[in-house]
Amino acid sequence: MSKIVIVYHSGYGHTKKVAEAVAEGASGALLVIDAEGNLPDGGWEQLAAADAIVFGSPTYMGGPSWQFKKFADASSKQWFTLAWKDKLAAGFTNSATLNGDKFSTLMYSFTLSQQHGMLWVGMGMHAPNGKAATRDDINNVGGYSGLMTTSPSDASPDEMVPGDIATAKVFGKRVAAAAAKFLKA
Amino acid sequence: MSKIVIVYHSGYGHTKKVAEAVAEGASGALLVIDAEGNLPDGGWEQLAAADAIVFGSPTYMGGPSWQFKKFADASSKQWFTLAWKDKLAAGFTNSATLNGDKFSTLMYSFTLSQQHGMLWVGMGMHAPNGKAATRDDINNVGGYSGLMTTSPSDASPDEMVPGDIATAKVFGKRVAAAAAKFLKA
Amino acid sequence: MSKIVIVYHSGYGHTKKVAEAVAEGASGALLVIDAEGNLPDGGWEQLAAADAIVFGSPTYMGGPSWQFKKFADASSKQWFTLAWKDKLAAGFTNSATLNGDKFSTLMYSFTLSQQHGMLWVGMGMHAPNGKAATRDDINNVGGYSGLMTTSPSDASPDEMVPGDIATAKVFGKRVAAAAAKFLKA
Amino acid sequence: MSKIVIVYHSGYGHTKKVAEAVAEGASGALLVIDAEGNLPDGGWEQLAAADAIVFGSPTYMGGPSWQFKKFADASSKQWFTLAWKDKLAAGFTNSATLNGDKFSTLMYSFTLSQQHGMLWVGMGMHAPNGKAATRDDINNVGGYSGLMTTSPSDASPDEMVPGDIATAKVFGKRVAAAAAKFLKA
Repeated sequence: MSKIVIVYHSGYGHTKKVAEAVAEGASGALLVIDAEGNLPDGGWEQLAAADAIVFGSPTYMGGPSWQFKKFADASSKQWFTLAWKDKLAAGFTNSATLNGDKFSTLMYSFTLSQQHGMLWVGMGMHAPNGKAATRDDINNVGGYSGLMTTSPSDASPDEMVPGDIATAKVFGKRVAAAAAKFLKA
Repeated sequence: MSKIVIVYHSGYGHTKKVAEAVAEGASGALLVIDAEGNLPDGGWEQLAAADAIVFGSPTYMGGPSWQFKKFADASSKQWFTLAWKDKLAAGFTNSATLNGDKFSTLMYSFTLSQQHGMLWVGMGMHAPNGKAATRDDINNVGGYSGLMTTSPSDASPDEMVPGDIATAKVFGKRVAAAAAKFLKA
Repeated sequence: MSKIVIVYHSGYGHTKKVAEAVAEGASGALLVIDAEGNLPDGGWEQLAAADAIVFGSPTYMGGPSWQFKKFADASSKQWFTLAWKDKLAAGFTNSATLNGDKFSTLMYSFTLSQQHGMLWVGMGMHAPNGKAATRDDINNVGGYSGLMTTSPSDASPDEMVPGDIATAKVFGKRVAAAAAKFLKA
Repeated sequence: MSKIVIVYHSGYGHTKKVAEAVAEGASGALLVIDAEGNLPDGGWEQLAAADAIVFGSPTYMGGPSWQFKKFADASSKQWFTLAWKDKLAAGFTNSATLNGDKFSTLMYSFTLSQQHGMLWVGMGMHAPNGKAATRDDINNVGGYSGLMTTSPSDASPDEMVPGDIATAKVFGKRVAAAAAKFLKA
């Protein structure tokens, strides 16, 4: 079975909820970027051993959090040797606004993956966008390059939209299926 | 008073509705890119005389419609002489999905404006994103770089969300106010 | 062996030169988008049968040519059934300016691939950027998400930088290797 | 005269060189983001009093440095009250690779400016891209949305390309001219 690591930063707990659902769907391991932008001991080794890495960050001021970017900058060590080349990559982001420049954050995670020579896998599904669609439909927020979730600015992590959490699980399964399909010899 | 031109393409009439609301808010003139990507007679002269140009396009397949892009490519004639330099620019896009890569389309319109040496003005406002927010709030979809509206895939142009149309008028006023403030000698 | 199709538009022949080199490196087939943005008879069937699709376009006015975008918009038919899901995707672009917003064009091709649910593979290599680097080094222009080439505005297709053409062959090999590695059952 | 502040982070001194040249061209003041992503005492007040803010960052791993992003995240305090609304914004970035995803960094600085409701001004000039062009021409790297400079990975700050430094001064003048033209009542 593929080793999938979900490496993420969460400022207030919402992105953590999403990360947990992605990990559940993907049968993956969680790896937390802390409030200072650092990984725990053994974190880099965990990423080195991964078949697939899923990047998660809130969208703050139109891009990934600085803690996520600090992690990205620190990965220049892996970049020098192209240590992550041909691993599978994917990404997700959460923010309070429906659209709110989430695409910018996913584009950054993609760009990071390309600096590393990774393969990128996105949602691989449509988004329900008819009049009957509700926020509880799978992929209602409507990301394609990656998972986008929306938690109102005054909602606690426990109040996240159930459909978004369900979408995160489906996205995790998508990543796992892609890893199973494309990474085995 | 500043001369503002809203140049747009609309495939099925939804973007036309938005364009009309922007024009109303901005006291601007509409200029239609037709189904073959061409402007009517006098269109280029109208743009040459404009103080501000607002670019409008649906988001199709994650970017502006080809008709809009054909217009953009044709503007290389103006680009050669930097004829639009220092005009004000702004942009809007409509699509069926809440997020749906609308940011990509706005980024393209911005990039086009920068090739031309124009100044860019965006929404200049927050987006209501609390639990009590509704789709009828001003800027509920939540664009910052430009106006984003969302019309369900099975909604007719007349069924567009009233809050989105109201937002388009507010955006038009924003562009007109910026033109009045920044373009006068 | 994987079936790789390079689908591209070329305005003046430079992108054609790059496409031919990519095809040579990838042992792939060329598929031309014509001056009206259309594919030849059998083109859509050729794409349907492909394991990997490489998107090529010049960068015009900061994005893909309108002919390429017309092709992209026409692929909404394939999008409706997710017919290209899990195919491999990659992209390249040529323009006259060293930087010149080429990244914008590659981001669009990537966004298109994600609407289709495809996997994306980029350059997977470093870019020579020391003082001793020359334009004839492999990946000297320095794309990561895809292949970037630069042909001076007054250079004929036959005058393209040899290093860029060599890079295009290496990129083609990269795509073929990724297809061989990841697409086999 | 307009108050122009160039707020920037520099990891190894190259971006500092560019910032100094921009400041000279713009008759602006320099404001340094330190190695921990913080501003000096009085930095936020300096930005509050500015008519125009120029954002500068190296491109690291395909985006702005984390220190720049930490500054951007900290500006959420100004964002809450839209304190920077209608100020003029511009941006620049330096990296070792000719192309090297610099566009991504400028897009982020632009996106940040739009969250704040600022107006954006870019290069407003062509890029020399014919066969006779050299790296010492003004805007030879070829940014449109902002200033792009390229310093080889093994070049000291004092070895930066003279044409890039000259371009930075011209860009500074461009920002000052735009401020003078558009910001006065």
